[in-house]
Parts: sequence; C-alpha cells; structure tokens
Amino acid sequence: MAIGEIKELPKSWAMLGGDGPETYTLNSSYQKGVVDASTEMVDDGIMEKLDLKSLGFESTNDTFRIADFGCSVGPNTFFAVENIMKAVQHKHHAQFNNSPFSGFQVFFNDVTTNDFNTLFKALHSNEKYFSAGVPGTFFGRLLPRSTLHFAHSSYCLHWLSKVPKEVLDSESAAWNKGSIQCDGLKKEVTKAYSAQFQSDMNTFLKARAQEIVGGGLMVIITGGLPDGVLMSQAGIGMHYDLLGSCLIDMAELGVISEEKLDSFNLPLYYSSSKEIEEIIKANGNFSIERMDSLSHNIWKTSRETKIKVSVTGGRAVFQGLLEDHFGREVAEKTFENFETKLDENFSIIDGAAHEHIDHFILLKRNVN
Amino acid sequence: MAIGEIKELPKSWAMLGGDGPETYTLNSSYQKGVVDASTEMVDDGIMEKLDLKSLGFESTNDTFRIADFGCSVGPNTFFAVENIMKAVQHKHHAQFNNSPFSGFQVFFNDVTTNDFNTLFKALHSNEKYFSAGVPGTFFGRLLPRSTLHFAHSSYCLHWLSKVPKEVLDSESAAWNKGSIQCDGLKKEVTKAYSAQFQSDMNTFLKARAQEIVGGGLMVIITGGLPDGVLMSQAGIGMHYDLLGSCLIDMAELGVISEEKLDSFNLPLYYSSSKEIEEIIKANGNFSIERMDSLSHNIWKTSRETKIKVSVTGGRAVFQGLLEDHFGREVAEKTFENFETKLDENFSIIDGAAHEHIDHFILLKRNVN
Repeated sequence: MAIGEIKELPKSWAMLGGDGPETYTLNSSYQKGVVDASTEMVDDGIMEKLDLKSLGFESTNDTFRIADFGCSVGPNTFFAVENIMKAVQHKHHAQFNNSPFSGFQVFFNDVTTNDFNTLFKALHSNEKYFSAGVPGTFFGRLLPRSTLHFAHSSYCLHWLSKVPKEVLDSESAAWNKGSIQCDGLKKEVTKAYSAQFQSDMNTFLKARAQEIVGGGLMVIITGGLPDGVLMSQAGIGMHYDLLGSCLIDMAELGVISEEKLDSFNLPLYYSSSKEIEEIIKANGNFSIERMDSLSHNIWKTSRETKIKVSVTGGRAVFQGLLEDHFGREVAEKTFENFETKLDENFSIIDGAAHEHIDHFILLKRNVN
Repeated sequence: MAIGEIKELPKSWAMLGGDGPETYTLNSSYQKGVVDASTEMVDDGIMEKLDLKSLGFESTNDTFRIADFGCSVGPNTFFAVENIMKAVQHKHHAQFNNSPFSGFQVFFNDVTTNDFNTLFKALHSNEKYFSAGVPGTFFGRLLPRSTLHFAHSSYCLHWLSKVPKEVLDSESAAWNKGSIQCDGLKKEVTKAYSAQFQSDMNTFLKARAQEIVGGGLMVIITGGLPDGVLMSQAGIGMHYDLLGSCLIDMAELGVISEEKLDSFNLPLYYSSSKEIEEIIKANGNFSIERMDSLSHNIWKTSRETKIKVSVTGGRAVFQGLLEDHFGREVAEKTFENFETKLDENFSIIDGAAHEHIDHFILLKRNVN
C-alpha cells in the first residue's frame, strides 16, 4: 500500500443493504436521478473524447474494462454502467464500422462491508458482460496497473475517508460545537473539512491514475455547492442542519449526552466547482474534458415526494452512521423527529435561495 | 452465452454462509485437508510446468491472474491461492532472478447465492494482491478471453449442475428408488449420472479453455473413486447411504411422503480416474501434466474427530440442499439421526475396504 492510501473505512460508511423497505436498493431515487441527469453528458463524452483506436482496440481485440467506484448495492450502478456500455458500443461502431467488439468486463467496487450479496443477486447479467465485485475503499489501489478503460464514480466523493479530528476536539479552534456538518459558518471548521477533502480526492486520483490506461476516461459525479455559497445557505445543508437539530433536541432532553453529540459530525464535504477543479489540476494526472452541474428532477416533484425522499433516502444513507454512534433507538427517534420537522419547516428549506449542485466532471487520463 | 452453458444453479447449491457455529467457514476441515495434501503437488507443478517466459512475463510486466472456481466463503480458498502465489513468485525468481514481479490479481468465483459478504470480510488482503469476487456458475463463461494464467478448482467438480432427471422418474429404467445417490449398484443409474458428469465437465473445460491463456495451468481437485470400485463400497458412499437411510426412516414413520423421498437425489458424482482422464482427453483443450490421488490426514484422526467432521461438515455442505427439499425441521432431524447412526455403524464405515480418493489433476492449456 502506498503512503497516503487508506486500508479500510468504518463499517457504518456502507449504505443500508438487504432487500427490506428501508434499504438503499429501494431508497436511492435521488442518486438515481443524478445518474439519469448525467446520461447524455456521459454519451457525449464517450462519443467525443474516447478514442478506441488510440487505446489499441483495433489491433488487440481487448475486452473493454469499466469500474464503478462506490457502486453500493444497485440498482443505480447497473443503469450507469449499462449506459456507458451502450455509448462505447456506439463509438466502436462509429470508429470501426462493423468489426466485432469483444465485449466488456465490469468491476463493481464498494467498501468491504457493502452488501455485495444483494448486488450480485440483482446482477443477473452474465450474458451481457463479465462482472466482478471488488471490495475495499477507493481511497487506495484496487486494480492492477493500466487495466481500466473507463472509471465511474457517482455520488460518493463528497464522503470523506474520516471526519477531520480537529472539528471534534474541544481544544481546537476548529471545534464544530453545535453543528453536525461543515455548515460553512466557521472558517476553521471549513478549513479542516476542506483539507480532508483535498487529501482524499488526491488519494483517489492517484490510485485511479495508476489503474486507468493513458487516454482512458473517468466520470466523477459528486455533491457540491455553487461557488461562494455556504452549505448552510443551500437546501441540502439546511436538511443536515435540521437533522442535527433533532440530535440537539435529544441532548437537551438528556436522551443523549452532550459529549456524545459533540463527538458526532457527518463525514461529508460539498466542494465548490472551483475547489474541485484546482485539486484535479494540482494532481496533474488527468485533463478536465468537461465540467458541468446536474439539474435534478427531484426538485420538480410534489412536497410529499420531496419529504419522503429526504426521510427514506436519509435513512438508507445515514442510518448506519447514526446507529453506530448513538445506538439503534436514538437513530430511529431521530428520523421520526426529522420527518416532523421537515414537514414543519418545508417552505423555508424548499424555498432556499441556493440549491446545492451536483458536479459532473469528465476526465481523461494523460498519456505518459 | 454459448450453447451448453448453464445460467445459474439452485440457491441451495451454495455452502452454508455467515459466521455461526454451523457454517462452512468453521466446518470445512475435510476440504482444508484436501488443499493441504495438494500443496506440494501444486508447488512442484508450478516449478516444473509453468513457463513465465512463454507467457510473456519478461516483456509485458503483466499482472499474474489467478482464479479459484468454487471458492465458497473461505478460509480454504485463501490458503490455496496464497500457496499458488508463493510458488509463482519462486518460479519468477528462478526464471528472472531479481527482476521485479508486478503482482497478482485473484478472482474468487462461486455461485451467485454464495455468501460473498463473508468471503470479502475474511479477505483483508488488499496489501498482498488485488482481489475480486466473480458471481455465477462455473458451468459457463465468467472471465474475458485469454486473461487467466492459473485456474484452481478444489472439491467442487463432483457437484453436478443438476440431478439427472431420469433417476427421479418412476417411468424410467434409471429410476433410483431407495437410494439418494449414485451408489453404483444399478447400471442405468450410473449411466445417467456419468453422462451428466461428462456433460458438466466438458462445459467446464470449454469455458476455462477460453479464459486461460495458452501455456497457462489449471489444478482440479475433485472427489473420486479408485478404478473399478463402486460408490457403495467406498467410505464416502457408505456415509451418503447412511444419510439416505435416515430419510428412508422418516418416510417409513410418515414424517415425509414417499414421493418426497423419491424425488430427492444428491447432485454428486465421484468419477474414476480413468473416466475423468478420458473426458479431459476428449475435450482436447488441455494436456494432462500430472494425475495423482491425494491422501488425507483426516483418516488418521480419532473416531470422535471423524464422526464430528462427518456430521458438522455434512451440515455445512448439505443443509441447504436438504432444507430446500424437505424443510428445516426434517433437515435438522436428519442430521441428528445421522450422528446417532454414524456412531452405531462406525466400525463398518471406518473399516471400509475401499476409501474414495480425491483426484489431483494438473492441466496445461494448449497453445493454439
């Protein structure tokens, strides 16, 4: 393992597995929306920027290898990779007319505690492509050198490898007392979170740079903020503040101790496009071929749908994290109160002047 | 999918997953013994028969790719692949002295319902080699063409893709009434089982022939019989007959119906070395580099250990199959009675004139 790589993430980083009503499988419509919104950009990117000839496809008759980093348990990952495959086949047809295409191998990656059993049961697709599950954090090497032609990572990289320890330290100027997230209101807190994000992104890019062949593409979709907007001003940040206020209520009622509350922060960082662009440029292994923001159909739905998606989606993503820190009962109560509060405060959050944006970034691996 | 390939096997074909006291993880000492007994043969085979130069390793600096077909949930698969890696490194050192070796990628394959979550949690080895799980039956293609350098399959290929339907058909001359296995006493039954084995082995070999590079090796370890010995004369066959007699008892007591009993047979076939040799030769894609039988330390242990291994090992392997057909309660009762009967009949079984043997076969993929 190279220096800076991370061996494993906490168990609670995994999305809720299984096939029950509260699972990620059934409650990831927001994340599905992101995939949908990116479909055309992926298609265009492959058509315009992927050169199968320079990757040697005419002569080698090689298998086209794709990896989805942070795939969770499906089904979103299947939509994403199947769209990529369709676009690559179009491009192959465009470049080589009717010469046969030798097919795909897809690597589905997520943390070791991800529910791969559920993923594999949903896969059922040996006929269309070869598939494999790759367990382990993507903040480290996962595949042999120069073996990937296309990497994809959707809605994962705003998750940090850890909560920066300063923000949980009462002795530090970056102590984030009173908030469970990087709300952008305290400079030292933002600085600590931003430094962790920069380090994690760089680790990710270094690992992928070794795995992706020169000329290969990578799509990164990640939660972000418009330049100059604070997390606490954005709809998504208001959601997290509301979730935090449910925990603060419970500390005030004495259900959880103040120390327990203070030692909890979300391992999330929503970067500005400027910030993430600078990190990629400083890393130096990839050229940015396209940078865009994704608009999301979810914001056009009804009040009821929005509340439902926020609560059930929040559960599927954060239940593990909350249970791990506060226990099952508190986690349960928190989501109940969250639903009530969301209903009460709906107009404020829904009318937030600033939405967060989801970054779409198309990268090309430099040819060394 | 090519003709003859099988899409998926029944859920109950999987070994007992999880980490409880009855799981395969904790009850596969027999299978571990097979791996241990083969260690030296694998080492010798790699040293003598693997030519890394002809596989292009000096010039390509490629990753050495290994797959274990039918890996179950561990830990046996880890012992097997780690032994292979050690031997390959020795060979690399012998062929190239101190030039750097670029490392390994290991594909762990088993049926889709195998407990990959347990396998991945036990893996913990990103540092030593790249790993991936490949779900799906090995009676079909699982990996891209010419990408494997070494294939391994231990103690799986005496499992058929299905019970031949004639042996469950009261109208057929091959109806196997009164037995749950191919005991060798009825010619038509043996013929039906043997034909299924031949078809399955051929399907397996065809699929692997496409995946393994010319000059690549494959080790097959599978349960078998000495030439000319019937299953009912061998210790292992006596075990299965005893298990069958527990089910017959329950049919006689009216706990299960006769039809239910008659519609159950084990999907197992223990071939003679002559038989498996002929199948491999007829397939034509591989040369047999070594064929041997494995002696097993388990037969040198105490009466108590042998009974324990037979019962708990039997549970870990067959519980799914029995539960699926007869329900949980009958399966439970069957294993209880099996333990009692095994104790009562120990001297007969233990003194069986013929043990079954485990075949060790080292194959080399022909260079086309």
